[in-house]
Amino acid sequence: MKKILVLLLFLQTFFISVSVTKKSISAEDWLSSWNNEMKIKIVNYIDMVTDPKNPGFIPESERFAVFDNDGTLWAEQPTVEELFIIYYAKKMTEKNPSLKNKHPFSRINDFYSNGKFVIKDRRIFDELVGIVHEGMTNKEFQKTAEDFFRETKYPGLNVPLEKIVYQPQLELMDYLRKNGFKVYICSGGETDFMRVISEKYYGISKEQVIGSELVFEYNENTNIMVRRSKLYTDNNGRAKAENIYHRLGRPAVFAVGNVRSGGDIYMLRYSQASEYPSFQLLIDHDDEKREFLYTEADNISLKWAEKYNWNVVSMKKDWKQIFPK
Amino acid sequence: MKKILVLLLFLQTFFISVSVTKKSISAEDWLSSWNNEMKIKIVNYIDMVTDPKNPGFIPESERFAVFDNDGTLWAEQPTVEELFIIYYAKKMTEKNPSLKNKHPFSRINDFYSNGKFVIKDRRIFDELVGIVHEGMTNKEFQKTAEDFFRETKYPGLNVPLEKIVYQPQLELMDYLRKNGFKVYICSGGETDFMRVISEKYYGISKEQVIGSELVFEYNENTNIMVRRSKLYTDNNGRAKAENIYHRLGRPAVFAVGNVRSGGDIYMLRYSQASEYPSFQLLIDHDDEKREFLYTEADNISLKWAEKYNWNVVSMKKDWKQIFPK
Repeated sequence: MKKILVLLLFLQTFFISVSVTKKSISAEDWLSSWNNEMKIKIVNYIDMVTDPKNPGFIPESERFAVFDNDGTLWAEQPTVEELFIIYYAKKMTEKNPSLKNKHPFSRINDFYSNGKFVIKDRRIFDELVGIVHEGMTNKEFQKTAEDFFRETKYPGLNVPLEKIVYQPQLELMDYLRKNGFKVYICSGGETDFMRVISEKYYGISKEQVIGSELVFEYNENTNIMVRRSKLYTDNNGRAKAENIYHRLGRPAVFAVGNVRSGGDIYMLRYSQASEYPSFQLLIDHDDEKREFLYTEADNISLKWAEKYNWNVVSMKKDWKQIFPK
Repeated sequence: MKKILVLLLFLQTFFISVSVTKKSISAEDWLSSWNNEMKIKIVNYIDMVTDPKNPGFIPESERFAVFDNDGTLWAEQPTVEELFIIYYAKKMTEKNPSLKNKHPFSRINDFYSNGKFVIKDRRIFDELVGIVHEGMTNKEFQKTAEDFFRETKYPGLNVPLEKIVYQPQLELMDYLRKNGFKVYICSGGETDFMRVISEKYYGISKEQVIGSELVFEYNENTNIMVRRSKLYTDNNGRAKAENIYHRLGRPAVFAVGNVRSGGDIYMLRYSQASEYPSFQLLIDHDDEKREFLYTEADNISLKWAEKYNWNVVSMKKDWKQIFPK
């Protein structure tokens, strides 16, 4: 019975791809930075799940999309969160110059070499992460992160941070929302950090951000929430699937991640546990000229993409334009 | 400066209560099961925060309401979740009769005395909780909970479970939604359990339920999520404030809890940390005839209500009708 349904859905998809699709695309081109091959696949899927007469129809209340952030919605060489840690550690030494000669602050300048940001010593970096977050109130954190986003340029590309988001993904998220999808971030990045820009950069409200989280401690006398440098959840790998269920109570049907560490494979795979037709996109960073070129040591994301029939986006081939103009 | 603002807001509230309010209430009576005194307070608040010309205006994206569930949205003598545990333990013995004579299943009948449900031995009950949840898939759990809700009558009141929700709260939630609020549950009850009925009973979608949560384990081969009988978060007391911040990234401005154990005080208090005007409702179970009568040993919820100026709802005095007809 299930096999028949799958076959029907497949046939349906096939028919759409030769008939309905062209109409939808030419009617209003929401995905103008996408080249045709991948665009047709996306539009076919959306046409199917939003058509009440189609057996693959998904009720609007069940239309959830999850996007990883680093390397999926914006560049990650280096990750913006890593830049923030060094930014804030520097701010701390400006306020309190005596820190400058103390470990690990004495090592801050190691993170730059010929104008490039590099984490040579992950241990030192992790020590800074702990110090930076520990004991900050959520308001201080928001303020500091806002300052950071205003003041920082992305190394290598030398542009403000709002210019490192991927234009095709902005279009895709708008297109999904236009079709009744609730768009969530599901990233290894820290939730509160992404919340500072999620609305402004992506149109995603704070409550629709799922990320790694620190332990918070609430004090009812001061009515203040304080951040502890202890992880409450590390939203990577398997935890992405689990946290999607924690937050949404069902799998998201549309899932988008990227090649780098295998961190998104469980999130992509889990979307296939939905009772509805699902769609997976895996971004491959293969564009040395316009963005960055990197691969995975074990190639696990691409292997799973093949095994489970996910759509692999070649940035080089599938994206007409990468960054906003 | 802050004091002046507070004073202005207070004066504003005063003016509204003698002028605008009557218009709003008579215009459309959304809170028909509420008596006038408390209704006016609620309507005044909503009029203030939805009026763009009022200094207390809250942008729609920031309008969040949180409701506790047990004793706030439905009756809790006993809690429905406790009934479910015994229901499921019984089902297990029906499937596997050899369990009947084994501890703790041999004790199931202890939970009923003269047709009343009572937890005499909390230790035995907690053992059953562990056994019931451990290793169930999320789909099995949903199915079982759906069966339970269909088959069960509430002891004492002898009505189906959908008849133990509070009519005034259904009206209040609709009224809030009509005014641009996103209504969340924030309860000590288990999230997945409440999700089974949150949409049907309250119009609250699954992703807007915040509750206690078990650890989930995801298996990518079977693509199945399994429940472990270990707590991931116990959403009571201070954790309610912390989990609201985890989930929403800011305090909710409208918070509703009830007297019983002090479990809602931090949630109510935390709403006052918002930068916007906030509103707190504490339900007092003082209606022996129509519902139940119970108080708190240490009276902490009522003490805090007085200290922090929360609105205390007397079910006897403030609610014309308690259950849906």
